[in-house]
Amino acid sequence: MTIHIALDAMGGDRGPDEVVSGAIKAVTESDLEITLVGNRDRLSTALKDYSNNDRIHVVHTTEVISMDESPIKAVKKKRDSSIVIAVDLLKQGKVQALVSAGNSGASMAAAIRGLGRLRHVSRPGIASIYPTLKKPLVMMDVGANVDCRPIHLLQFGVMASAFSKVMFDIDEPRIGLLSIGEESSKGNTLVRKSRELLQESPLNFIGNVEGRDIFHGDVDVIVCDGFVGNVCLKLSEGLAEAVMLMLRDEINKSFMAKMGYMLAKQAFENFKKKVDYTEYGGGPLLGLNGIGIICHGLSNANAIKNALK
Amino acid sequence: MTIHIALDAMGGDRGPDEVVSGAIKAVTESDLEITLVGNRDRLSTALKDYSNNDRIHVVHTTEVISMDESPIKAVKKKRDSSIVIAVDLLKQGKVQALVSAGNSGASMAAAIRGLGRLRHVSRPGIASIYPTLKKPLVMMDVGANVDCRPIHLLQFGVMASAFSKVMFDIDEPRIGLLSIGEESSKGNTLVRKSRELLQESPLNFIGNVEGRDIFHGDVDVIVCDGFVGNVCLKLSEGLAEAVMLMLRDEINKSFMAKMGYMLAKQAFENFKKKVDYTEYGGGPLLGLNGIGIICHGLSNANAIKNALK
Repeated sequence: MTIHIALDAMGGDRGPDEVVSGAIKAVTESDLEITLVGNRDRLSTALKDYSNNDRIHVVHTTEVISMDESPIKAVKKKRDSSIVIAVDLLKQGKVQALVSAGNSGASMAAAIRGLGRLRHVSRPGIASIYPTLKKPLVMMDVGANVDCRPIHLLQFGVMASAFSKVMFDIDEPRIGLLSIGEESSKGNTLVRKSRELLQESPLNFIGNVEGRDIFHGDVDVIVCDGFVGNVCLKLSEGLAEAVMLMLRDEINKSFMAKMGYMLAKQAFENFKKKVDYTEYGGGPLLGLNGIGIICHGLSNANAIKNALK
Repeated sequence: MTIHIALDAMGGDRGPDEVVSGAIKAVTESDLEITLVGNRDRLSTALKDYSNNDRIHVVHTTEVISMDESPIKAVKKKRDSSIVIAVDLLKQGKVQALVSAGNSGASMAAAIRGLGRLRHVSRPGIASIYPTLKKPLVMMDVGANVDCRPIHLLQFGVMASAFSKVMFDIDEPRIGLLSIGEESSKGNTLVRKSRELLQESPLNFIGNVEGRDIFHGDVDVIVCDGFVGNVCLKLSEGLAEAVMLMLRDEINKSFMAKMGYMLAKQAFENFKKKVDYTEYGGGPLLGLNGIGIICHGLSNANAIKNALK
C-alpha cells in the first residue's frame, strides 16, 4: 500500500523551496504519495522543474504560522494556515501521516486540537532519536512541554517506551531519567519526584542517567522535560558541528595533515553521516490520535526527505 | 608571591592517588604551595615517591564526605571532613584559595557556611569555561543550584559577567540566556521571567541563545539554572568523547584511513586538547567571600593540576 503524507510546505526556516525539494527527493526514492499544503502560487514556483506530478499534490491555503507566534493563539486564529489544514487532512483520513518543519509548538497545538490525545495522556510530546556508540535511543520530550509535572515525565516514559518497542524491536526498553548524578538524591525537584513515579511504575526503569551517559547507549529511552530535552538536542547538534569545524581548522594548518585527511576522507564521510541529525529527519509526536512528525526549523531537503520516509 | 592552595585530597571519583598526582605535577610546573587536606596515612602512601616536600604539606582529617551524601547535612555533621577543614584553612587566611573534586554540593555548602556570601548574592554558584569556535565563554550556574528563581539567574549574570571581565579582559561581556528559541516568548516560565529581569538590568544582555549557538562564541557569558547547566556540561563532555570514539571506529575500518590518521595525528592531538575539559580543570565558585574552584568528580591528575594553576 502506498503511504500518503501531508507535508506542511510553508514551515521551516529555509522556506518552501527546501521543503519541496525534500518532498521531490522522497517520492523519487520511494513510492510515497505526498500532499503539499501551502500557498498554491508559491508551491508552483518551487515545483516548476518537477514534471512527474502524479505522486505530489497541492492543497491551497492562505495563511502561515510563523516561528515566533504564540502556538495556541495562532492555531485558534489562523484556521486556514498550512499546519491546521494538514492536520485536517489527517483527521479526515485523506492522508495517513503528517510532517512539519514549522513552529513545533503550533504543530503540536494544531495536532492536539484536530486529532485529540490518546487515552490517559495528559501531555503529548515530541520524541527524538539520538545516535549513540551502540544502538540509537529515544529521548522524550524534546520541546513540546517546557514546564512539566512528574506525571508528565512518567507518561513520556510510557509513550517513548512503546515507541522504542515498535521502532527498534526491543522487548523491554531500558528507561533512564536525565539528571545530574546517579544517586536518587541528585536532580531538581521535578526529577526527584518523577524518579519516585518511574520506580513504582511497571516500566523497565533503570535509574538516573547523566548527560555524559547519553552517548554510551546503555539505555533505550531517556526521559526529561521539554525544555531540557530541547536544549540537549540543539546543544548536541551544535557541538557535533563545532567539533567538525575545529578538527578541520587543525587539519588545514598542516600539509601533512591535509594529505592524511584525503586518505581518511571516506571514514570522515561515514562518520559525518552517523552524527548528522538530518539522517533521522524528524521526531514523532507521541500521544496523539494520529501520526505526526516534527522536523527542525532548520531542516534541509535531506532531513525533510528522511522524515517523510 | 607564592600562592598557597588548600586541596581537598579525599574528593574525586578517582581517589586520593589521582588528586595527589595532580598536586605533584602542579608544584613541579609552577611555584605554587599546596596543602593536601585528608587522611595522613592515606596521603603518605600517595606521596611516597615524592621526596621534595617543601611545597606540599598535609593537614590530617578523619572524615570524608562521599559523593552520594546530602550536602547540607553532611557538612553540618562531619566537622572534621576534608572539605570542611580545607574551607577553615581558607577562612583563617592560611591559604589563598581552595580546590576540590569532591561532592560539589558539599563543597558549596561548606564554603557558604565557612566563608559567607558576597553582599547582594542570595545563591553563589559554579561557573564553567566552555571552549567555542572563537573565545572561550563562561557558563553559570553549572550545578550548585538545581531549583532557581529568576532573581538567581540575574545574579548569575552579574557574577559571571564580573568573572568574564577579569578572566578574559572583556569590557562589557555579552550575556545570553540559555533557552529553546531566540524569541522572547520561547522558554519555560523561569527563563521567560529571568529574561525580563536581565533586560531591565544594566548588564550587556543580548537575548536568548539556543544550545546550538553555545559553540559559535558570539556571547561571552551564558546564564542558566544549575540543573540545565550541569546537564549541558556533562553532555558536552560525553559527546566530545563519543565523537572521537566514533571517528576512531570509522578510521580503524580501513587501512588507507589509518595511514591518513597517522599523517594527520598532530592535528588530532591539537584538536583533542582544544575540546578536553581537563585543560581548564575546574570551575570557580562565584559569590563567596573567598576563592574556591570545584573540579569534576571524574577529574584526572591533569585536570587537578590545571585547576590548581
